[in-house]
Amino acid sequence: MSGIDRALFIGRFQPFHKGHLHALKWILSREAEVVVAVGSAQYSHSFKNPFTLGERLEMIATALKEEGLWERVILAAVPDTDGKHSLWVQTVVSLCPRFRRVYTNEPLTRLLFEEAGYEVVGIPFLEREVYEGTKIRRIIAEDAGWETFVPPAVARIIREIGGVKRLTELVKLESKGIDK
Amino acid sequence: MSGIDRALFIGRFQPFHKGHLHALKWILSREAEVVVAVGSAQYSHSFKNPFTLGERLEMIATALKEEGLWERVILAAVPDTDGKHSLWVQTVVSLCPRFRRVYTNEPLTRLLFEEAGYEVVGIPFLEREVYEGTKIRRIIAEDAGWETFVPPAVARIIREIGGVKRLTELVKLESKGIDK
Amino acid sequence: MSGIDRALFIGRFQPFHKGHLHALKWILSREAEVVVAVGSAQYSHSFKNPFTLGERLEMIATALKEEGLWERVILAAVPDTDGKHSLWVQTVVSLCPRFRRVYTNEPLTRLLFEEAGYEVVGIPFLEREVYEGTKIRRIIAEDAGWETFVPPAVARIIREIGGVKRLTELVKLESKGIDK
Amino acid sequence: MSGIDRALFIGRFQPFHKGHLHALKWILSREAEVVVAVGSAQYSHSFKNPFTLGERLEMIATALKEEGLWERVILAAVPDTDGKHSLWVQTVVSLCPRFRRVYTNEPLTRLLFEEAGYEVVGIPFLEREVYEGTKIRRIIAEDAGWETFVPPAVARIIREIGGVKRLTELVKLESKGIDK
Amino acid sequence: MSGIDRALFIGRFQPFHKGHLHALKWILSREAEVVVAVGSAQYSHSFKNPFTLGERLEMIATALKEEGLWERVILAAVPDTDGKHSLWVQTVVSLCPRFRRVYTNEPLTRLLFEEAGYEVVGIPFLEREVYEGTKIRRIIAEDAGWETFVPPAVARIIREIGGVKRLTELVKLESKGIDK
Amino acid sequence: MSGIDRALFIGRFQPFHKGHLHALKWILSREAEVVVAVGSAQYSHSFKNPFTLGERLEMIATALKEEGLWERVILAAVPDTDGKHSLWVQTVVSLCPRFRRVYTNEPLTRLLFEEAGYEVVGIPFLEREVYEGTKIRRIIAEDAGWETFVPPAVARIIREIGGVKRLTELVKLESKGIDK
Repeated sequence: MSGIDRALFIGRFQPFHKGHLHALKWILSREAEVVVAVGSAQYSHSFKNPFTLGERLEMIATALKEEGLWERVILAAVPDTDGKHSLWVQTVVSLCPRFRRVYTNEPLTRLLFEEAGYEVVGIPFLEREVYEGTKIRRIIAEDAGWETFVPPAVARIIREIGGVKRLTELVKLESKGIDK
Repeated sequence: MSGIDRALFIGRFQPFHKGHLHALKWILSREAEVVVAVGSAQYSHSFKNPFTLGERLEMIATALKEEGLWERVILAAVPDTDGKHSLWVQTVVSLCPRFRRVYTNEPLTRLLFEEAGYEVVGIPFLEREVYEGTKIRRIIAEDAGWETFVPPAVARIIREIGGVKRLTELVKLESKGIDK
Repeated sequence: MSGIDRALFIGRFQPFHKGHLHALKWILSREAEVVVAVGSAQYSHSFKNPFTLGERLEMIATALKEEGLWERVILAAVPDTDGKHSLWVQTVVSLCPRFRRVYTNEPLTRLLFEEAGYEVVGIPFLEREVYEGTKIRRIIAEDAGWETFVPPAVARIIREIGGVKRLTELVKLESKGIDK
Repeated sequence: MSGIDRALFIGRFQPFHKGHLHALKWILSREAEVVVAVGSAQYSHSFKNPFTLGERLEMIATALKEEGLWERVILAAVPDTDGKHSLWVQTVVSLCPRFRRVYTNEPLTRLLFEEAGYEVVGIPFLEREVYEGTKIRRIIAEDAGWETFVPPAVARIIREIGGVKRLTELVKLESKGIDK
Repeated sequence: MSGIDRALFIGRFQPFHKGHLHALKWILSREAEVVVAVGSAQYSHSFKNPFTLGERLEMIATALKEEGLWERVILAAVPDTDGKHSLWVQTVVSLCPRFRRVYTNEPLTRLLFEEAGYEVVGIPFLEREVYEGTKIRRIIAEDAGWETFVPPAVARIIREIGGVKRLTELVKLESKGIDK
Repeated sequence: MSGIDRALFIGRFQPFHKGHLHALKWILSREAEVVVAVGSAQYSHSFKNPFTLGERLEMIATALKEEGLWERVILAAVPDTDGKHSLWVQTVVSLCPRFRRVYTNEPLTRLLFEEAGYEVVGIPFLEREVYEGTKIRRIIAEDAGWETFVPPAVARIIREIGGVKRLTELVKLESKGIDK
């Protein structure tokens, strides 16, 4: 695997926002090719994970094509393993093109990949307090100027699929502690 | 969804060969964008499904980049639902970017999508008796001039991952009727 | 499906109480036939879901037979999909007789069925603060006059299966935050 | 459980035909109430299991209502456990109202329930060589006078859901040995 | 099963500490043979369940061999059933050698086995406030004299597999409420 | 892991017969300690896999204790992964104590462990045509002098659990091609 010139960038991308785009550009400045792996792939319709995998793949692919970054990216998807963490790294390996290095700021992802012998690199996120998933989902739910936080393609798709109404409902469920 | 200008092309791609490439070009001559969905995503290391999803995504992405077709494609993956066929179409919908039309020659896929109200289009495969997955896997197992049947990127990756040895072993298991 | 004169009434029915019976009668005053779908079908032996699906089916069937409502009802069961909400509506459709309209007060059920294009109708529950599942389960756990809250058949079955002792234990686990 | 006056009748009911109806009447001549448990609940769209659970529940409920047998029946459903046979009896017990006796001609069902200590009773099927699921499915696939083999309600529902076309396609897949 | 002279001792053993060893010796003073069943078998890499099943089996087996207790023990493992509690006792029965009596202080385990007709015996734990799993995991995370709480074999294995570093990371995730 | 002086011996052990015992003794003549891993752990009550995991663990543990081999063995269990072969080696690693070398004659097990970088050693089975699982199961089904093929403890347990009757029934199902 020594000759593989490809890195893994893993996240939930709920939704894919400008902080993610900034991070991806930084990784692409260091790596020839990047596997963007969409995590928690099986979940949707909760405040934490509002969008389906299909919706997230469409957002990311469309945004990266518009940004001219698509040529050096391969999209992949990885489900959560419901607490079976000892299988998670091998699950990622089975589902993704080969990679040599992992980019993540998520501590458990780091722990698991380091135990498996991988090099893990932290990401200098863009204005972390601004471009943060939970915050952006709340702003979408209120339909209050959220379009500036995401690439244009992502904003367009969220509009088309009724994502604002969905998040408005999900934030209500969240506040009542209801999870079906 | 009426405005969606995207089609679905679904297959197992074990491996992605020139017949698939030919079919994809034909679909791209009719559609603006194509979701290439890799089916039976969870299986590998059997004669029918020798390659992991990650290996197949790497083969397809690399081949399409070399062919200059990547810009109008989005890769996705769909697991088999183990006989729970009534959930399969919705599983595909959840895991893939939106699409308006389905291209397949697989009869059960056609039946399920037609029952769900989708337009399904058959594919004029290139020399079907030559470019056929089972046959190509047997030729790889014998390591007998198989490279001409697949795009150069696919041949390179099969070599790198030890795919010939793997298929040689799997064809032996197949012939003994052994499936672990 | 336009000719289907049947509605869906979905709930966990832990247990089936007089509020549910009241709601069902109201729905039957508007619909020719009702599918009573028992949700969270796979769970039992927790304070939130004390009774097995089999126990709940027996309670509901016996109560509806005694009430003379059985002739216009079909019982069905639906498991939770563990956060895979994008598959939930199709799961319900696969597991239940055809229906044209959905009766529920549960917000996520409403959201999911509305996104799938179904008409969803709210239910005027009987004295919601009295006939409320959590409250009734607590009263059963204390064995304090709970029989008046449920149909006679439900009370009889809860006694027969040792449901009071079970709830007494489960409420203790709940208060300690223990869930095996 | 000694006082329970209820029996279990388990089958796949693909579809529910006059042989099943005859068997149910015979069981009802001996038992006060019968749980009709629909097995292989999760499967559909194969030649062996063409109809979804929802379709089968609708067929059985509608037929039994028309026959005036509904009052003494409770419908339930049981999935296959994919070879985990040691959990199957307890799965049935969890998903069904309490029962004291099991009616079946299926040898593995008999073995498992007998090992668990249940009384198992064989069923005198009506003209077994005529009313046999596989044969009836083939006749439906050919659309050749199949209505006489099933209750009128079942025939009507099969027509409404496009069951003849579905079986025509599935029998073709069966003959090619294709199972997606 | 009346002649079976074997008991079940069930726990998560995260990790196997001197309190567990003390309890096992007490059970062995009353029983001819003991099945030590490792629960929550599928989980690892969380603060509540840091060690894999394999690591726990190795710790217990090595400790019991060094203690001279191995000859009268059989190790087994039982996964959680994710809220499907009605299947749990039968799952244990299927996965473990036959046993006649259950030793546990866990209330839900007691409830489930008692409903299934088993005799359940409480365990006089050694200085419960000292030998308590959560407390011992915190002390390991701080690497502060934890070796005295566990058998020497367990301490050695935790060192070898990097268990201190793992727990140090997991306690941080726990305190942030992060669970991947 | 370099210091680990332990090997893996993996099989289905349906049942554990004298060929397995012979093989284990041979492995123990070369290794300090052996993990005996019972494969296809979740299956039972089919002709290929008649005995539950619990029954197999009891047979193996009792036999090895009587043979005086228990002190150098650790029992473990591994489920099949239903065709997800790319996760199988890591599943074994997660569920078993650490091991350095794998003993097996099963070709797919060999392929998967070799691809993962393990040393795999073949086993010189005792009179392979005599001590072969399928053949021994047929002889048990006929109750024709099978006790000489298995260790005394195994024979005793098969008698106690009604294993002969079970196999007699299962061989009938097998011959009819019935698998529930």
